[in-house]
Amino acid sequence: MINIGVIGYGYWGPNLVRNFSELPRARLAAVSDLDPARLKLVAARYPAVETTTDPQKLFRDPKIDAIAIATPVSTHFELAIAALRAGKHVWLAKPMTETSFQARQLVEEAEKRKRVLIVDHTFVYTGSIRKVGEIVKSPDMGQLFYYDSIRVNLGLFQRDVNVISDLAAHDFSILDYLLEEKPVAVSAAGSHHFPGTPENLAYITMFYDSGMIAHANVSWLAPVKVRQILIGGSKKMITYDDLEPSEKIKIYDKGISFTDDPRQIHEMRVGYRIGDMWAPKLEGTEALRVEGEHFIDCIENDATPITNGRSGLRVVELIEAATSSMRGKGETIHLRRGD
Amino acid sequence: MINIGVIGYGYWGPNLVRNFSELPRARLAAVSDLDPARLKLVAARYPAVETTTDPQKLFRDPKIDAIAIATPVSTHFELAIAALRAGKHVWLAKPMTETSFQARQLVEEAEKRKRVLIVDHTFVYTGSIRKVGEIVKSPDMGQLFYYDSIRVNLGLFQRDVNVISDLAAHDFSILDYLLEEKPVAVSAAGSHHFPGTPENLAYITMFYDSGMIAHANVSWLAPVKVRQILIGGSKKMITYDDLEPSEKIKIYDKGISFTDDPRQIHEMRVGYRIGDMWAPKLEGTEALRVEGEHFIDCIENDATPITNGRSGLRVVELIEAATSSMRGKGETIHLRRGD
Amino acid sequence: MINIGVIGYGYWGPNLVRNFSELPRARLAAVSDLDPARLKLVAARYPAVETTTDPQKLFRDPKIDAIAIATPVSTHFELAIAALRAGKHVWLAKPMTETSFQARQLVEEAEKRKRVLIVDHTFVYTGSIRKVGEIVKSPDMGQLFYYDSIRVNLGLFQRDVNVISDLAAHDFSILDYLLEEKPVAVSAAGSHHFPGTPENLAYITMFYDSGMIAHANVSWLAPVKVRQILIGGSKKMITYDDLEPSEKIKIYDKGISFTDDPRQIHEMRVGYRIGDMWAPKLEGTEALRVEGEHFIDCIENDATPITNGRSGLRVVELIEAATSSMRGKGETIHLRRGD
Amino acid sequence: MINIGVIGYGYWGPNLVRNFSELPRARLAAVSDLDPARLKLVAARYPAVETTTDPQKLFRDPKIDAIAIATPVSTHFELAIAALRAGKHVWLAKPMTETSFQARQLVEEAEKRKRVLIVDHTFVYTGSIRKVGEIVKSPDMGQLFYYDSIRVNLGLFQRDVNVISDLAAHDFSILDYLLEEKPVAVSAAGSHHFPGTPENLAYITMFYDSGMIAHANVSWLAPVKVRQILIGGSKKMITYDDLEPSEKIKIYDKGISFTDDPRQIHEMRVGYRIGDMWAPKLEGTEALRVEGEHFIDCIENDATPITNGRSGLRVVELIEAATSSMRGKGETIHLRRGD
Repeated sequence: MINIGVIGYGYWGPNLVRNFSELPRARLAAVSDLDPARLKLVAARYPAVETTTDPQKLFRDPKIDAIAIATPVSTHFELAIAALRAGKHVWLAKPMTETSFQARQLVEEAEKRKRVLIVDHTFVYTGSIRKVGEIVKSPDMGQLFYYDSIRVNLGLFQRDVNVISDLAAHDFSILDYLLEEKPVAVSAAGSHHFPGTPENLAYITMFYDSGMIAHANVSWLAPVKVRQILIGGSKKMITYDDLEPSEKIKIYDKGISFTDDPRQIHEMRVGYRIGDMWAPKLEGTEALRVEGEHFIDCIENDATPITNGRSGLRVVELIEAATSSMRGKGETIHLRRGD
Repeated sequence: MINIGVIGYGYWGPNLVRNFSELPRARLAAVSDLDPARLKLVAARYPAVETTTDPQKLFRDPKIDAIAIATPVSTHFELAIAALRAGKHVWLAKPMTETSFQARQLVEEAEKRKRVLIVDHTFVYTGSIRKVGEIVKSPDMGQLFYYDSIRVNLGLFQRDVNVISDLAAHDFSILDYLLEEKPVAVSAAGSHHFPGTPENLAYITMFYDSGMIAHANVSWLAPVKVRQILIGGSKKMITYDDLEPSEKIKIYDKGISFTDDPRQIHEMRVGYRIGDMWAPKLEGTEALRVEGEHFIDCIENDATPITNGRSGLRVVELIEAATSSMRGKGETIHLRRGD
Repeated sequence: MINIGVIGYGYWGPNLVRNFSELPRARLAAVSDLDPARLKLVAARYPAVETTTDPQKLFRDPKIDAIAIATPVSTHFELAIAALRAGKHVWLAKPMTETSFQARQLVEEAEKRKRVLIVDHTFVYTGSIRKVGEIVKSPDMGQLFYYDSIRVNLGLFQRDVNVISDLAAHDFSILDYLLEEKPVAVSAAGSHHFPGTPENLAYITMFYDSGMIAHANVSWLAPVKVRQILIGGSKKMITYDDLEPSEKIKIYDKGISFTDDPRQIHEMRVGYRIGDMWAPKLEGTEALRVEGEHFIDCIENDATPITNGRSGLRVVELIEAATSSMRGKGETIHLRRGD
Repeated sequence: MINIGVIGYGYWGPNLVRNFSELPRARLAAVSDLDPARLKLVAARYPAVETTTDPQKLFRDPKIDAIAIATPVSTHFELAIAALRAGKHVWLAKPMTETSFQARQLVEEAEKRKRVLIVDHTFVYTGSIRKVGEIVKSPDMGQLFYYDSIRVNLGLFQRDVNVISDLAAHDFSILDYLLEEKPVAVSAAGSHHFPGTPENLAYITMFYDSGMIAHANVSWLAPVKVRQILIGGSKKMITYDDLEPSEKIKIYDKGISFTDDPRQIHEMRVGYRIGDMWAPKLEGTEALRVEGEHFIDCIENDATPITNGRSGLRVVELIEAATSSMRGKGETIHLRRGD
C-alpha cells in the first residue's frame, strides 16, 4: 500500500485525488492547497484525508511515500526537488518544469536517490494511444512518413503558458512514446492576437533524420473543437479522432507504390493501394487509472515509468525550442541532446 | 461573340472545352493538342470545331480572339507569350508559370498590348469563396486573425510540380482574393517520401504585417480526403468544408473578449462569446461558367479580371518562396514585391 | 425552503439526490432505498441526510413537503398515492405508472388534494427541446407536417418495460409539449428477438386530425447510437441531433411550394425553396436543474407543472395503445380521451 | 453481340443509352421517344443510332434482340408485353408495372417464350449491396433480426407514383435479393401533405415468419438527405451509408448475449459483445454496367437474371400491399403468394 499526498486542488488536482482514492494499492493520505476554501471541499468529500495549506508537512510526513504535484508550472521545480530530497517518489503534472535546466536537475536528483519520477502525460495511457503504439511499432505499419496533429478549440486561454506548452506538449509526449527516433530540429510559427497574453495559436514542425516529419496545429481560437491525428506509413495509415464517440482509431490499408519501369522514364509510375479500413475495439479503462497503477507498479518494482523524467525533459526541450523558433518567426532550431 | 481556341486536351482541357462550348457569348473555334488520339475525341464530340496538332495555327488564325492554355506548366510561358504577341487575349491554367520572372514578363506583355490575361484560379469563382469574401470583407468580421487550411488526400502524385504548386496554390489565390493585405514573409516545411519525386507533403505559414497569420497543410499522402478552411476574426469565425454536400460555409458568432479589471491582475480576464451559427445559402452556378463569363466581360469591356496576371504572379512568387523555404528546412523568406 | 425526500437510489435516484441537494430553494431531507448498501453510499456522500429502508417514514415525516420517486415502475402507483394521501407534493419518474387507470387515479388524487404532481419527463426541460418548442409554436414554422424520431443504440435491455416505454415515451412527452393537438390514433410494430424478454425494437406511428403524422423508431439492438428528430413544417424544417456536441438544433429555411397553373394540368407544379440554415445558441443549464426549480416554483405558487399528471397520463395512454397495437401486428388503435 | 433498342429518353433513358453504347458485347441499335426534340439529342451524340418516335418500329426490327424500356410506369405493361410477343428480351425500369396482375402476365409471357426479362432494380448491382449480400448470406452474420432503412430528402415530388413506389421499392428489391425468406405481412402509414398529390412520406413495416422485421422510412419532404440502412444479426451488425464517400459499409462485431442463470431469476441477464469494426473495400464498377453485363450474360446463356420478373413481381406486390395498408391507416395486409 503506497501512501500518497497530493499538492494542488485546482483544475487538475481533483482528478488526481479521486483517482488515488480509488486505486486498490494506494491510500490517499493528505492534500495540500494554498486556498483553505479548496481544502474544505476535500474534507467534505474525503473526511479521512488530512488537509493542510503547508506542503512542507507532506514532505516531512514519514508515512507518505509519494507526492503528486498539480500546481501551476512555475512552482513545479521547487516542490518536486523538495519532495525528491525528502525521499518521496514524485508524480508531476505536465509540463514537467518551466525550463529544461530545471527538468534535467529533477531527473538527476531522482536517479541519484533512486526515486520514481513520473510526468503526468495522461494521453500516453489512453486506450487509443496504446493501440496506436501497438500498430506503429509493428512491422505492419512499414516505414513511418509523417505524424500530423490538429488540436484546436475556443479557449481556455491561459496566463502563464502558451498554446505550445498547453496543447502541443500532448503531441510531443505522444511522439516520444510512439517513436524510437527523436526529432533533430524543430520549426514553429505562431501568434498572440491579444496584447499581453501568451501565443494562442501555433504551427510546429519537427524533423527527423529518417525523413519522418511531424506537425502540430494548435489553437485556442478556433470556432470548432478538433482533436485529430493522421499517421502515415508505407504500408498502413492511421486516423485518430478523439471526439468520435466509438471508433476513435481507424487503420487504413492504403498506400502508394512506385514502379521503376525504364520505358516510362517520362512518367511518374505511381500506384495507389486502397484496401479495407479497420477500427479496433479500444481498451476502455480510464487513462488516469492506468497511469496510477503503472506508478504504483514502478514504485513497488523499482521500475522506470513510460512517461519518466527523461521523456518529460525531452518534452520540455521541445517546448523551449518550438517557442524560441516561433518568436524567431520560424527559424529552425537544431536540437542537441546530451542524454 | 468571342472566338476561343483551346490548347491542351489532357486532364483539365476537356472542362474548358465543354465550358466555352456552352457559354452564350463565346464560340469554341479550335482545339489543339499534340496527341492526335485526343483530337479525335474532340472531333467526335464537337464536329463543328477545328482540331490541329499545331498550336501556331491558332495564333495565326485572325478569327480567334482568345486562347485558353491547359498544357503542362513548363510550356505555359512560351505558349502564352506567343498568344499575347499574336494579339490574343489569354486564359492560362494555374499555376501561371514555372517562375515569377516568366510571370512578370507575361503581365508586362499583356499590359503593353492591352490584352486580357486571366489566370484560371477556379476556386475564387465558386459560390463558397465568393460568399466567404462577402463576409470577410464586411465590417461584421472584425479584425482578421488567421486563415488555416487543410487540403490532403491520397494522390494524385505529380511529376513536374510539387504539392505546394498543386494544392497550396489554391490557398495562395484565395488569400490574394480575400485580403487587401499581402504576406510579408513565408516559411515552409515539407518532405518527399519517394526518391526522385517532388515534395508530396508540406506545411506553409504566411506572415502579415497586421499580425494576421495564414497556414496551409497540404499532402498527397493522407488516408482521408480533407478540404477545410478555418478563418478567425475578432467578431466572427468561419468554417468552409468543401466536402459537405449542402452546408459548406458556416459562420459562427463566436469570439474572445478581454476585460482589464485592475483588481484581477493575476488572472487572465477572458470571456467567451458563443452565439448562433449560420449557414448561408450558396450560389450554385458552376465556378468555371462564372469565370468564363467574367473573362468574356473583361474582353468586351476592357476590364481587369479578378484573377488577373498580377495576382497570378503573386501566387507564383509565393510558390517559389515557399518551395525555397521548404528546401531550406523552414528558413523564413521575406517577400519583396516590386508591383 | 422545500424539504424533499427521495425514494429509490438505484440508476436514476442519485441524479435526483444530487440535483435536490444543489437547488437553492430545496433541502434534501431524507433518502429511502430497500438496499442498506445503497443507503451507505448516500450517508458517506451526504452526511446530514437521513436514510431509511422504510419509505413510510418519509410519508409520516411532517417536515417533508415533497416526495421524489425513482423506483421501478411497478411500485410507482402505490408509493405515489401514499405520498399524495399523506399530503406531499410528488415528483414521479417516467413512465408515470404501469397503466392509464393508475395514472388517472393519481391525477385525481393530486387535484382533489391540491398537491403538485410532476412527471419527470426530463427531455422537455432541455435547452434543445425548449428552443424547438419556441420555433414550432411560432408562426414562422407554418403548418406542421411531420415529426420523425430515431432513438436507437445497443442496450440497455430492460426486464420490466419494453422499448416503447423506455425510449418512445420520450417522444410521446416531447410531442405532448410541442403540440396543442393530440394524436387520434396510433399504430405500432415491433419485435422481441430473445425469448422471455420485452420488445427490444419498435416502430410507432401517431395520426393527428390535421394530417400531421408522427413516427418513432426505437431500438436497443442497433450497432450505433442515434438520437435524431426531424420536424417538417410548411415554412421551416428542423433537425435535432442530440449527439452533436455543439449545434444540436438546425433550422432550415426549406420547403415546397405548389403552383396551380391551369395550362400545366399534366404536370406537377412543385417548387423547392432552399434558403439559409441557422443553428441557434442553446441554453446550457442542466435540464434536471431547470425541472427542479420549476417544481419548487409550482409548489410555492400553486401552479401546474409543464409535465403535469395529465400530460403524464397521456404518455401512459400512448404507451398502452402502442404496445397493444404492436402485439396486434400493427392494428391501428383509436384513442378516446376522457380528459 | 446483342442489339438493343431503348424506348424512352427522359430522366433515366440517357443512362441506359450511354451504358449500352459502352458495353463491349452490346450494340445500341435504336432509340425511340415520343418527343422529337429528345431524339435530336440522341442523334447529335450517337450519330450511328437509328431514332424514331414509333416504338413499334423497334419491335418489328429483326436485327434488334432486346428492348430496354424507360418510360413512365403507366406504359410499362403495354410496351413490355408487345416486346415479348415480338420475341425480344426485355429490360424494364422499376417499378415493373402499375399492378401485380400486369407483372404476373409479363412473367408468364417471358417464361412461355423463353425470353430474358430483367427488372432494373439497379441498387442490387452496386458494390455496396453485393458486399452486404456476401455478409448477410454468410454464417458469420448469425440469425437475422432486422433491416431498417431511411431514404429521405427534399423532393423530387412525382405526379404518377407515390413515395413508396419511388423510394421504398429500392428496399423491397434489396430485401428480395438479400433474404431467402419473403415477408408474410406488411403494414404502412403515410401522408400526402398537398391536395391532389400522391403520398410524399411513408413508414412501411414488413413481417417475416422467422421473427425478422424490416422497416423503411421514406420521404420527399426532409430538410436533409439520408440514405442509411442498419441490418442486425445475432453475430454481426451492418451499417450502410450511401452518402459516405469512401466507407459506405461498416460491419460491427457487436451483439447481445443472454445467460440463463437460475439464481438470477429477477434480473435480465444480458451481456454486450463489443468488438472491432471493419469497413471492407468495395468493388467500384458502376452498377448499371454490372447489370448490363449480367443482362447480356443471361441472354447468351439462357439464364435467369438476379432481378428477374418474379422478383420484380414481388416488389410490385409489396408496393400494392403497402399502399393499400397506408390508405387503411396502417391496417396489416397479409401477403399470399401464388408463385
